[in-house]
Amino acid sequence: MGVVVPLDEERGRGQNAVAQLQALVAKDMEDVNEFIRERMGSEVPMIPELASHLINSGGKRLRPMLTIAAARICGYEGADHIKLAAAVEFLHTATLLHDDVVDESDLRRGKKTARMVWGNQASVLVGDFLLGRAFKLMVETRSLRSLEILSSAAAVIAEGEVMQLAAAKDTGTTEDAYMRVIQAKTAALFAAAAEIGAVISQRDSNEEAALESYGRNLGIAFQLVDDALDYGGRQATSATLGKNVGDDFRERKITLPVVLAFRRGAFWQRVLKDGDQREGDLEHATKLMARHNTIDATIARAQHYGAIARDALAIFPDSEYRQALIDLVDFCISRTH
Amino acid sequence: MGVVVPLDEERGRGQNAVAQLQALVAKDMEDVNEFIRERMGSEVPMIPELASHLINSGGKRLRPMLTIAAARICGYEGADHIKLAAAVEFLHTATLLHDDVVDESDLRRGKKTARMVWGNQASVLVGDFLLGRAFKLMVETRSLRSLEILSSAAAVIAEGEVMQLAAAKDTGTTEDAYMRVIQAKTAALFAAAAEIGAVISQRDSNEEAALESYGRNLGIAFQLVDDALDYGGRQATSATLGKNVGDDFRERKITLPVVLAFRRGAFWQRVLKDGDQREGDLEHATKLMARHNTIDATIARAQHYGAIARDALAIFPDSEYRQALIDLVDFCISRTH
Repeated sequence: MGVVVPLDEERGRGQNAVAQLQALVAKDMEDVNEFIRERMGSEVPMIPELASHLINSGGKRLRPMLTIAAARICGYEGADHIKLAAAVEFLHTATLLHDDVVDESDLRRGKKTARMVWGNQASVLVGDFLLGRAFKLMVETRSLRSLEILSSAAAVIAEGEVMQLAAAKDTGTTEDAYMRVIQAKTAALFAAAAEIGAVISQRDSNEEAALESYGRNLGIAFQLVDDALDYGGRQATSATLGKNVGDDFRERKITLPVVLAFRRGAFWQRVLKDGDQREGDLEHATKLMARHNTIDATIARAQHYGAIARDALAIFPDSEYRQALIDLVDFCISRTH
Repeated sequence: MGVVVPLDEERGRGQNAVAQLQALVAKDMEDVNEFIRERMGSEVPMIPELASHLINSGGKRLRPMLTIAAARICGYEGADHIKLAAAVEFLHTATLLHDDVVDESDLRRGKKTARMVWGNQASVLVGDFLLGRAFKLMVETRSLRSLEILSSAAAVIAEGEVMQLAAAKDTGTTEDAYMRVIQAKTAALFAAAAEIGAVISQRDSNEEAALESYGRNLGIAFQLVDDALDYGGRQATSATLGKNVGDDFRERKITLPVVLAFRRGAFWQRVLKDGDQREGDLEHATKLMARHNTIDATIARAQHYGAIARDALAIFPDSEYRQALIDLVDFCISRTH
């Protein structure tokens, strides 16, 4: 399966990695958080209430950290990376608000989703508000190239979500089709977040391309691991995940651990295509996956993309930022939540 | 009530007005429609299918026509007004898709809403896709000022929708609060659509301000009439409206015809605040409005804002475009659907 790094060693490095990156970008991220607080403000009280419920729910701010670290690794000395990072977090938050409506999710990061507290209607509209504010922040940087990258990403993310919707319940979905979905719905924003750090630093196109590749491959690895965790990979539980194990199963989403387990048998047809799910079916699905090693195979795919992400950074001279971004790959792959 | 122009005369002028404007901008609007068709394309078939269901449903394209006419009245000779107009229509379409989900609407322009055909999930996501594509089109014009105006408008529109949601069922809503809602949810996009026509023409700030004011006041008048029609003003019926008369009543939206009819009586409390609506209540509400003349008062308010819109154009020399925009005010006020 091409697993080169022993899992335990990787896991140990991974847990420190995000802390190292967080320490390096701490000062910048304070400024990002300040902008986020300020720009989600509105005279309509429900807007900052709903937005802050999600924004302050303990997310790791991975995507805006990518923008900050990418700008720093390119030697950027200005202040626009702060606004772009805040815009990236707004874009991501808007996506999550809409996703939770689309998926009818009850829990995120161990808390009730905004739609459970304020309703689907407000979640859709506050998502739109944050999208508008995200673009306003980008415009303030006057970086047309960043605007182009992020507006393209916004459309591609939505495209990926629609693809996923269209593929849902389709037990004929291939690994290729699955990969197209996660590249669009997840990796496009990781890629854009990293790329714009190089763009505002006005670096040559090699460095821009390297950071785009780093972000894209990291995002693919991140989503592959996410989909493995949803079926209890790494002994994930609802408590460690902050959401329910088996959500993808109940929503009949076709993710790689399932795609790799497909056989002609009637089980997957019944539970995913026909949606006839009974007591014990999730357990049976998990057993089938264990028998076919599909969780491990999914993680192995993640390691493949993680290696590409790491190697993309080879063109940069060694630095604390470069090392932190390399270690971040381990974190994303070895994470258990 | 300040009604200066007799209604019949105004109505006659209004019906020709939109046709005159349409004729003037016909060539440009062909190009706009070409861009719309091209840019709503996606390899995911559901996206253009869903988007074109709404975009080709016979809407009047009022907002993009404003952008075109505003650019032309400013003597603009370039091609960027086409892209901006297409972006404005995408922004508007995204808003409608999300509104229909939020309002649980079944009908729009006499057709099933997209959410009834493709579901709420796809409607939310395709709306997001169109927002992303709208910003991409704007970025291509490289007009940072237009981007600023339209991204601000996008956030304000969502803010207005949340305000409306928060005010729903609140029989204590004042006319002032209602005005804030419609200025945000409707007039902000009319204002932005007209203003950016001046912006890309690089006209002085007086002309920019004049077109912003024209658009804003036209938008207010437009929404006031809309809210009057929803209660059967101008003998509107579900057939002429292309949607159900009384939708606002059933959704317990607080619009001006209702605000002006509020009395301490228990009726409005029961049907709007408590949501206890029975057979015959809509008819009774309409009778109360007739007794208090609230539909006529709402139309009179529209005429007030319409007059401001007309007068805002006084700084421009006489031209076919100026006359068509002036006549468009009559159309928006005298329209019966």
